Amino acid sequence: MLKPHSTPQSLAYVDGELVAISEAKISILDWGFLHSDATYDVSHVWQGRFFCLDEHIDRYYAGMEKLRLSIPYTKAQLAKLLLNMVAQSGLRHAYVEMITTRGQPSPGSRDPRTCTNQFFAFVVPFVWIIPPEEGLHIAISKQQRIPSASVDPTIKNYHWLDLVMGQFDAYDRGAQSAALVDENGNIKEGPGFNIFIIKGNQLFTTNTGVLQGITRKIVMQLAQKLALEAPHALNTKVVLGEISADAFRHADEAFATSTAGGIMAITQVDDSVIGTGRIGPLTTQLKEAYWAMHTQSKYSLEVPYPK
Amino acid sequence: MLKPHSTPQSLAYVDGELVAISEAKISILDWGFLHSDATYDVSHVWQGRFFCLDEHIDRYYAGMEKLRLSIPYTKAQLAKLLLNMVAQSGLRHAYVEMITTRGQPSPGSRDPRTCTNQFFAFVVPFVWIIPPEEGLHIAISKQQRIPSASVDPTIKNYHWLDLVMGQFDAYDRGAQSAALVDENGNIKEGPGFNIFIIKGNQLFTTNTGVLQGITRKIVMQLAQKLALEAPHALNTKVVLGEISADAFRHADEAFATSTAGGIMAITQVDDSVIGTGRIGPLTTQLKEAYWAMHTQSKYSLEVPYPK
Repeated sequence: MLKPHSTPQSLAYVDGELVAISEAKISILDWGFLHSDATYDVSHVWQGRFFCLDEHIDRYYAGMEKLRLSIPYTKAQLAKLLLNMVAQSGLRHAYVEMITTRGQPSPGSRDPRTCTNQFFAFVVPFVWIIPPEEGLHIAISKQQRIPSASVDPTIKNYHWLDLVMGQFDAYDRGAQSAALVDENGNIKEGPGFNIFIIKGNQLFTTNTGVLQGITRKIVMQLAQKLALEAPHALNTKVVLGEISADAFRHADEAFATSTAGGIMAITQVDDSVIGTGRIGPLTTQLKEAYWAMHTQSKYSLEVPYPK
Repeated sequence: MLKPHSTPQSLAYVDGELVAISEAKISILDWGFLHSDATYDVSHVWQGRFFCLDEHIDRYYAGMEKLRLSIPYTKAQLAKLLLNMVAQSGLRHAYVEMITTRGQPSPGSRDPRTCTNQFFAFVVPFVWIIPPEEGLHIAISKQQRIPSASVDPTIKNYHWLDLVMGQFDAYDRGAQSAALVDENGNIKEGPGFNIFIIKGNQLFTTNTGVLQGITRKIVMQLAQKLALEAPHALNTKVVLGEISADAFRHADEAFATSTAGGIMAITQVDDSVIGTGRIGPLTTQLKEAYWAMHTQSKYSLEVPYPK
């Protein structure tokens, strides 16, 4: 057990103990590694407050249930454990990841039902994918996102090789990140983010073959709310439907959503500049509203740092 | 460093050192875990001889190249390292796994190009998926195998959630393992194995959307050889083409191929008994020829156990 009151530091919860991140390791025989047989979730802490923790925990438990995984904690116990981990770390801007792996099978067995599932968690400093005042340059990859018929995308999972290859593809083409497509060439998601476009005062995002992101959900709620407040700025209707590569390249505005980074403007898609090439007015509005939620007790929870 | 001459035991190679398997761990921040951004290969040792090691090493390096991963060893150095690991373990029947992971990015970065790739290897006792005298009962899963357009199946990878879900599906239906399909319902592969059927003296296996298994390749070579020796028993032509669910259920014989277990007869598919419900004559012939190769120096290498 680490001593509290130390300098802010990354910590992890492994085998029921809080340890320094450098000591946070998993057996190479755990099927969470050897079969990527695991689910996880990532929440974040901003200005010392945990954002939407309950929603992340709900999604995490739903994923475990679908994969027939379990951990020996109730949701309330898990929340307490994570709050304590962050409090002990002293980090006030952080990512918090919770992980359940299949574990190892009984000796001589290859039956996943004989495995003891393992729980891990860690807290590390918050990192911006891009500086918040910048826009992303995205390349549309030929790489197809793993389809729902193979891996249920509503279960947050570590099957990222398609995203990693898309990322390299993007670098090769001078872009910063990638958008992956489905078998029909429609835009699905990027490495760790959902994608929205704005066209003619309507907000579009796909509803199939992607993670049901929590930032994505918040954006849809905010769009609805902002539209009611300023009906001429944004249509009330969020359109859930396919986005073609062409629609993406010719959007008025576009952005990516992720717990890692929040709402990130996309200002270039392949060779096409989006809008003016700067963060658009509606994206800015959504971004400001998103960050304003972080101090509201309805959406965030104060971390009980040691005094 | 472990002392040689100890009782046979599982060992691993981690951070450039041989350690007991219980000490073999990977950082939970390694993207080999967090993004399943890794490739691997598994070879086996039988009666103290390494089987087809060079072919496994060749495939492993080809996978690394495709994923832009590297390790600081030549193929010859790696072979020596693995031979030494097995020799030190004292295990005479074993699996040997070699792994390359992306590693961790530079602090504050999410760029895979900043990662230092990591190498791991381990040797554990050989385990039969099923006793070699038994046949497998397979359920055809509705779960689709991750398609090639998403993840190149010729790169041996840990994206197994589709296979794991198929496995649970099989258990629910009273079977021992699963066959996954493509979007057209054609049979692809099971958790860790390729699938062959025999119908009218012809051997069929799919050539797309599956790992190009080394046991699979050996079976095709053996079939060719056996057919030349006994032309009435087996047609010379191995048919590479799609296998429908119906053809699978109505095969004369069927089997699975894997480094883990070699050639394993499939004697039931869903509710359909295959052939007589016992291991068929051609499967037996291929099996015997396969195991006979293990003592031939053309295919296997003696492990230099300490005297």
